[in-house]
Amino acid sequence: MTFSFELQQQDQAARTGRLVTPHGAIETPIFMPVGTVGSVKSLGPDDLTRVKTQILLGNTYHLMLRPGPEHVQQMGGLHSFMSWDGPILTDSGGFQVFSLAAGEPRGKDKAKGHRGPLVKLDDDGVTFSSHLDGRRFRMTPEESMRIQMCLGADIIMAFDQCPPGQSDRDTVQIAMDRTTAWLKRCQKSMTRTASRLFGIIQGGIHDDLRVAHAQEICESDLFGYAIGGLSVGESKEDMWRICEVTAKHMPNQKPRYLMGVGTPQDLLDGIRCGVDMFDCVMPTRNARNGTLFTSQGKVSIKRAQYALDKDPLDPQCSCYTCQNFTKSYLRHLFVSGELLFFRLASLHNVHFYLNLVSQARAAIAESRFEAFYQTHWEILGTSDAKTASMGP
Amino acid sequence: MTFSFELQQQDQAARTGRLVTPHGAIETPIFMPVGTVGSVKSLGPDDLTRVKTQILLGNTYHLMLRPGPEHVQQMGGLHSFMSWDGPILTDSGGFQVFSLAAGEPRGKDKAKGHRGPLVKLDDDGVTFSSHLDGRRFRMTPEESMRIQMCLGADIIMAFDQCPPGQSDRDTVQIAMDRTTAWLKRCQKSMTRTASRLFGIIQGGIHDDLRVAHAQEICESDLFGYAIGGLSVGESKEDMWRICEVTAKHMPNQKPRYLMGVGTPQDLLDGIRCGVDMFDCVMPTRNARNGTLFTSQGKVSIKRAQYALDKDPLDPQCSCYTCQNFTKSYLRHLFVSGELLFFRLASLHNVHFYLNLVSQARAAIAESRFEAFYQTHWEILGTSDAKTASMGP
Repeated sequence: MTFSFELQQQDQAARTGRLVTPHGAIETPIFMPVGTVGSVKSLGPDDLTRVKTQILLGNTYHLMLRPGPEHVQQMGGLHSFMSWDGPILTDSGGFQVFSLAAGEPRGKDKAKGHRGPLVKLDDDGVTFSSHLDGRRFRMTPEESMRIQMCLGADIIMAFDQCPPGQSDRDTVQIAMDRTTAWLKRCQKSMTRTASRLFGIIQGGIHDDLRVAHAQEICESDLFGYAIGGLSVGESKEDMWRICEVTAKHMPNQKPRYLMGVGTPQDLLDGIRCGVDMFDCVMPTRNARNGTLFTSQGKVSIKRAQYALDKDPLDPQCSCYTCQNFTKSYLRHLFVSGELLFFRLASLHNVHFYLNLVSQARAAIAESRFEAFYQTHWEILGTSDAKTASMGP
Repeated sequence: MTFSFELQQQDQAARTGRLVTPHGAIETPIFMPVGTVGSVKSLGPDDLTRVKTQILLGNTYHLMLRPGPEHVQQMGGLHSFMSWDGPILTDSGGFQVFSLAAGEPRGKDKAKGHRGPLVKLDDDGVTFSSHLDGRRFRMTPEESMRIQMCLGADIIMAFDQCPPGQSDRDTVQIAMDRTTAWLKRCQKSMTRTASRLFGIIQGGIHDDLRVAHAQEICESDLFGYAIGGLSVGESKEDMWRICEVTAKHMPNQKPRYLMGVGTPQDLLDGIRCGVDMFDCVMPTRNARNGTLFTSQGKVSIKRAQYALDKDPLDPQCSCYTCQNFTKSYLRHLFVSGELLFFRLASLHNVHFYLNLVSQARAAIAESRFEAFYQTHWEILGTSDAKTASMGP
């Protein structure tokens, strides 16, 4: 099967590359829209193609609950099921099990080391209850691999343990040891030739643990490596210090994936650290809440100031939404609860993310990434809250 | 301004024609998808073009409440606001005022002739409360024209009074007289040169009243005429007897519009009576509820029998949904509450309606409409309920 990664230009730590999978090639750095339950919420494959999506992420946790891995396999795998012909990466399900299914640990549960009333973690794996109907499930490295192989993604993630962002050294060390042991079991179970495995580096916000775990994980000869356990409650300062130190200890010739990150600013910060791949629900989730990303910062479309605004959301944007509709119309759809809003807003936000990484690639190729970063970083973090008083 | 209607082929009472507006030509018989609040729910103009939508309907009642007629006018009119370049027809708002805003008349309200606690009807017009926030509004023939001219539709409907389907002769006669008087006032107020007015025929289920009112309304030289007051609670038998007798008394050389109708079977029945135009929320509303129209009858996509069904919804359908997705996937999206379902299902149902009228046009053109009707009518009314026992 055709899999390769070729590092292309480098500009300080930032880099461009070309990742080839059986379902197509991906230019990096890249952002992966998240298709949680078998669709990128409100967007069809036609919309995804239109915004130049290069690779999608599917969530193992959600798909195992509904419609179930065997179901997807019987329908020809996730590509065929959702009619998406391009590359797909699936996560291991672990992160969702820990974050979605875990309630607050109470009384005896806490004493017994339960992560919460719904989740029981041990060295072999994790037992949890579905957030949909309470059904009990057992997830192990082997089971995560089996499910992901049923789904048939091009890139499959190792099953890891991701501790909360502020965890102490002992907690982090246990999670690291488990993650390393689980990676070996994942490698043994990974028998699908049309997929490749990524390992995940933990280590919390402790520089030395991160370096140690990066070395440990990268000893396994894998197709790529991910930085896990960031954007899980730690400060931005900790996050970027750790991202930078971790990336430095990852192999130069393999793709680097920063999991679950993040804002447009985060993408630029990650690229500056030498990260190649990102995923986050933010563009689609924020879209549904009426928060739209633009070249001039965040727009909260419900604001009265846009009621009679004839301009497109972002005059610099070439997406279908910005080429055809005014802020006035988008606001009207949002306040009226019209379903079309979710599609137009999601389409724009995903286009915005993909255009941002595309611009970053061009800047790296022309050795002007730092200037690009300086020009864009601050304005990406602004919002229209400041200009609200100008509205009617 | 370019407006014309040319009657083309006739096949018994069924007929094809070509209706030209400043925003383009329409081949009749045609179905008009309903864009209630400024969008056809879940579909963009790109989707509407893809399913070969020829003309849209906009609801005056909903648009007057939100965002308001002056707002739409300031944004360049409804075409510009919703980015739809094709023809648009707006209803008068009257039907919605009577049906949506009217509660059950009680006590004194009933004695005073109120239609309900929220609606007060008199010879001059109607006063009602918004279903959104209770704001009081006054609608008259002049106000309906003013609002529709703000919206800027190509075809504008006269403000009429539509009594319930089983109304007695006296109630119907009052509604007819009001409708006739209001039409004169609408004609006087209609000053927009880029729009044309349709008059509406009432008369309940009383043949002689229908004939009388058809003659009365059609005395006014208008661009087209509509049959109102059907599909409002009367039996199907009454409905089609009245439709047929009314259509016979409408001018042959003018377009005939049967308002608010209906099911796929209804479209065929209406075409057989010589109707040229239809509108209904059914294809989009049913889509959102999981009921999909196919060449083999209605499909309730939530049924377990479709869980592992690899076939498209309708193998005979050329729409984007049927060309790309299985029933299994559509069912998964529906039961998971994924937003993409609403778009794919609405797109299919609207395509189905538009394809049905397109096939009917071809059949009329080839003088084989009756055979077409006989072949399709019964199967269009079937549903998958009968085959449910075959499911797992």
